[in-house]
Amino acid sequence: MNTPAIDPLDEQSYSRLVGERLRSIRQQKNLSLNEVETSTQQEFKASVMGAYERGERVISVLRLERLARFYGVTVDQLLPRDKQREDAAQSGTAAPKKLRIDVAKLSAH
Amino acid sequence: MNTPAIDPLDEQSYSRLVGERLRSIRQQKNLSLNEVETSTQQEFKASVMGAYERGERVISVLRLERLARFYGVTVDQLLPRDKQREDAAQSGTAAPKKLRIDVAKLSAH
Repeated sequence: MNTPAIDPLDEQSYSRLVGERLRSIRQQKNLSLNEVETSTQQEFKASVMGAYERGERVISVLRLERLARFYGVTVDQLLPRDKQREDAAQSGTAAPKKLRIDVAKLSAH
Repeated sequence: MNTPAIDPLDEQSYSRLVGERLRSIRQQKNLSLNEVETSTQQEFKASVMGAYERGERVISVLRLERLARFYGVTVDQLLPRDKQREDAAQSGTAAPKKLRIDVAKLSAH
């Protein structure tokens, strides 16, 4: 018998995590649900957005992509944070590692 | 009456575009549908993957995220290319702009 290689997170639990993330990004943008509705010209109705954010409704990939565009973020930024995932994303980009400078050490010389 | 601010791409057309992208990434990884099935321990069955790639079946955000993890790419990389989208993604990251060096000009000095 075969068992899944990675954690079998179900759609419902995942929607809750996505919802928390959607709410967090919206709040970072200082937008109310009604403002999202107005700014997207009713494409994302406040009631539907609320249901997404509470994890009561599953958002489609297309809608998530459009929401990311509206918020001015990447789709990955709208998804739940995950250490493993972030590492993969980082090694996938050409972004250089942050350079750490020990100021105390520098001034000692 | 309100009209959508951005192109109202429907779910079906979008699934086709996502499917093309999924196929393209799988081929870049030199994997057959059956190899994906085996490597994911049946999480992504060849028949289901084929349906995703032909745009006959809509992939969920969770499944897309897991597939991205399996392929070792970001979710954004699994989504259809879009000029506007890429610009947004670029300005969203801290990645520096590519430095262009005109070698001819340099050696002229």
